[in-house]
Amino acid sequence: MEWFIIGVVAALLTTFGFVPQILKMYKMKSVNDVSLVTLFQFSAGVALWTLYGIYRSDIIIIAANAVSFMTLVVAIALYYHYQKP
Amino acid sequence: MEWFIIGVVAALLTTFGFVPQILKMYKMKSVNDVSLVTLFQFSAGVALWTLYGIYRSDIIIIAANAVSFMTLVVAIALYYHYQKP
Repeated sequence: MEWFIIGVVAALLTTFGFVPQILKMYKMKSVNDVSLVTLFQFSAGVALWTLYGIYRSDIIIIAANAVSFMTLVVAIALYYHYQKP
Repeated sequence: MEWFIIGVVAALLTTFGFVPQILKMYKMKSVNDVSLVTLFQFSAGVALWTLYGIYRSDIIIIAANAVSFMTLVVAIALYYHYQKP
């Protein structure tokens, strides 16, 4: 049971890992030092993880990565919004 | 077999997801807009994932998250190095 909890906490921490970065972008109104490549690389990665979860019929993999993908869409949108020309 | 490849590509993309951010920190010599909370949150998350992988005796989970943890240690060290007082 304690291992199940460790797995859940691990999943929550990484699934919502970009939320503080989103809040920082919003607060700073600046994204100069943020790597857009990292955001797109994670988006592609978690999209493939979601496909892999569908193939494995693993609802945990699907849910964690689909939610993570949504946070990354928000992060990328904010990046373009605050990007200086 | 193609699903195995999708899983491997997904794992590689997310495991090395912070490498472009590390390169950007090094290039910009500035971390103003980078979220330190995101870096620590991912570090804690992948550390717990590594423990979970040890419990599950899953070498893929262990390897991917241990490597990811090492990239995060580098990212956090660079953050403090380039942080403006």
